[in-house]
Amino acid sequence: MGEAWIAGVGSTKFGRHPDRSLLELATEAGRAAIDDSGIPPERIGAVFVGNLVSGILTGQELLGPLVAANLGLRHVEAVKVEDACASSSAGVRLASHMVGAEIHRAVLVVGAERLTGAPREVFTTSMTAAIDGDTEAASGLTFPGFWALVMRRHEHLYGTTREQVSAVSVKNRGFGVRNPLAQFREPVTAADVLESKPIADPLLMLDCCPVTDGAAAVVVASPKLAWRHNSPAVRISGSALVSGPPRVADYDDVTVHDGTVVAAERVYAAAGIGPEDVDVAELHDCFSIAEIVDAEDLGFFPKGEGGPAIAEGRSRTVVNASGGLLSKGHPTGATGCGQLYELALQLRDEHPNQVPGARVGLAHNGGGTTAAVTVHVLERLS
Amino acid sequence: MGEAWIAGVGSTKFGRHPDRSLLELATEAGRAAIDDSGIPPERIGAVFVGNLVSGILTGQELLGPLVAANLGLRHVEAVKVEDACASSSAGVRLASHMVGAEIHRAVLVVGAERLTGAPREVFTTSMTAAIDGDTEAASGLTFPGFWALVMRRHEHLYGTTREQVSAVSVKNRGFGVRNPLAQFREPVTAADVLESKPIADPLLMLDCCPVTDGAAAVVVASPKLAWRHNSPAVRISGSALVSGPPRVADYDDVTVHDGTVVAAERVYAAAGIGPEDVDVAELHDCFSIAEIVDAEDLGFFPKGEGGPAIAEGRSRTVVNASGGLLSKGHPTGATGCGQLYELALQLRDEHPNQVPGARVGLAHNGGGTTAAVTVHVLERLS
Repeated sequence: MGEAWIAGVGSTKFGRHPDRSLLELATEAGRAAIDDSGIPPERIGAVFVGNLVSGILTGQELLGPLVAANLGLRHVEAVKVEDACASSSAGVRLASHMVGAEIHRAVLVVGAERLTGAPREVFTTSMTAAIDGDTEAASGLTFPGFWALVMRRHEHLYGTTREQVSAVSVKNRGFGVRNPLAQFREPVTAADVLESKPIADPLLMLDCCPVTDGAAAVVVASPKLAWRHNSPAVRISGSALVSGPPRVADYDDVTVHDGTVVAAERVYAAAGIGPEDVDVAELHDCFSIAEIVDAEDLGFFPKGEGGPAIAEGRSRTVVNASGGLLSKGHPTGATGCGQLYELALQLRDEHPNQVPGARVGLAHNGGGTTAAVTVHVLERLS
Repeated sequence: MGEAWIAGVGSTKFGRHPDRSLLELATEAGRAAIDDSGIPPERIGAVFVGNLVSGILTGQELLGPLVAANLGLRHVEAVKVEDACASSSAGVRLASHMVGAEIHRAVLVVGAERLTGAPREVFTTSMTAAIDGDTEAASGLTFPGFWALVMRRHEHLYGTTREQVSAVSVKNRGFGVRNPLAQFREPVTAADVLESKPIADPLLMLDCCPVTDGAAAVVVASPKLAWRHNSPAVRISGSALVSGPPRVADYDDVTVHDGTVVAAERVYAAAGIGPEDVDVAELHDCFSIAEIVDAEDLGFFPKGEGGPAIAEGRSRTVVNASGGLLSKGHPTGATGCGQLYELALQLRDEHPNQVPGARVGLAHNGGGTTAAVTVHVLERLS
């Protein structure tokens, strides 16, 4: 297999876009990524569009051909890919296969989602698209409910405290202040988290990512094509997409997400690194407790030690310098490409919260009850 | 690139399945394909699930991980792919890339759809998911409307007659009589077509495929793995996925579908054959006129001669021996895999309408306004 690089990235602002359609957002991000890469559009052989609920909320599918046509890309392999909140990073995984195998020299991946504006009950129901409707969604399970179960169990098994979980929100909202793409740019304190209203006990409002519109895109290309066009490229040193349990009932222990564990093993092996080598990471903090679980499953800390380790700032890896989903927002299908956008800027030394000398980045994106997991390792080689 | 073979196929009956969920249908077809291949499930590295409107009609997404889990496939690359009515054949295209590049030795592709039971207006609206909602769906365009435009133009430019178009329905419904998977198993006459009620002038009811539930699946595998397990395998000699115009307004001429033309060029070049070498073909006859346009764009006949050629039985290629979408039904996301199921049986000499000595098969599947097109060439080599 040859190498696949991220040759260009683009993103809209994440937040509320009441006046713009999904296709407009997707087209803006896709065009920005192509322009950033410097690669001529006619070299792009495939387009993957990651999206979760366009069908449910607006009735629009066929996003692959529509986005391709809007960008003037003709006769390409254009497909929508859906893996719940990991949809667009799953697209990047497929793109990295295609470019690595020299099927295409360049593949565009766009993630896009419009979530705001729907009535609350419609929005909540739409999110249960990523829970098995025949079983657990029918029983009333929601994602706040799932992560509340995880938090309760983590507290019970490891003594994780409310203060430790709040520290995730405080840290990530602090990073969000300087990210111009973030939906929330005001910091919060631990007291703010504690005083925020209950959502699904023990989760409080400031433990939860917001409802967000947005689009982000990456161009995955061969190193040769990226060099020829002087792209600001970073290498994809590891890429994994792994299915995990799609139902809570399939979990042995809801504090261990084996899709993440297996994906991490695969990318570390591919990249020839370990968790200790990661300088910057974007983890799927849809809820504050999730960052703790993710960091443990990725090997940043032993299982059960994530709470105190994050609260005490023990990690050498800077996690969610973008502000994470808690600050940036979580436009589900766009989130995976959004994380890779942030990492690419870090490795290009262009990030608003730049980690000095960052050379190795890791992105972790989860869909459903961590039923679909992607992990990517990016490296700066120059 | 190495070769990719279809090592096993499976299908539910196509028709009405009021008592079975989408996941049950998908699981049945997937298991049948794995069993047919004889390949141990643990060798399957990826699962693609093709579906169009599960989200819209039932609110269920995350189909990749759910189908994988239902089949006992753990830690695989599981993704839903959507390209409207070409969703599952797009999955086969991605699978053929992956197997050809030796990324995985075996990939399962399942197409599944539940369409019956929805109120008529909900169903009609759901199908416009594959038309641009910002423009043409908002103007009232539907798929019967699109193909009515195509038929009118074809009549105008080439003198194609009502009788010639009816001949497609008569032929395909005749084939459907002996296909145990088909939704319609009664033959129709040209008089029946003419007397059926108007749908979108000039299309009549018997020009239109029905509303259908069903699932079909294929296992794409390396020849080595297929041989080792004595799979009843046929070679994928050509595979193409090509984006075409996603809006009627993007067409120069609605009687020429350039996605099909380009896909055909690519697969003929890959397979080293021409249209004259195809023994059996499954073409996307969502409406009777579509088979005429498809056959022309694939080079079976010069443009404009499809009507008389089909009516007079001039083709040496036997088209839609399965009964086509007009008899089998059109469970949108499942249709592409359903066509490949039929072709595999032909090349294995196991089809209920067996074409004696069939060695080369071609499947053509279109999504939206032929906005996503797949063409596959399968060959029997033994």
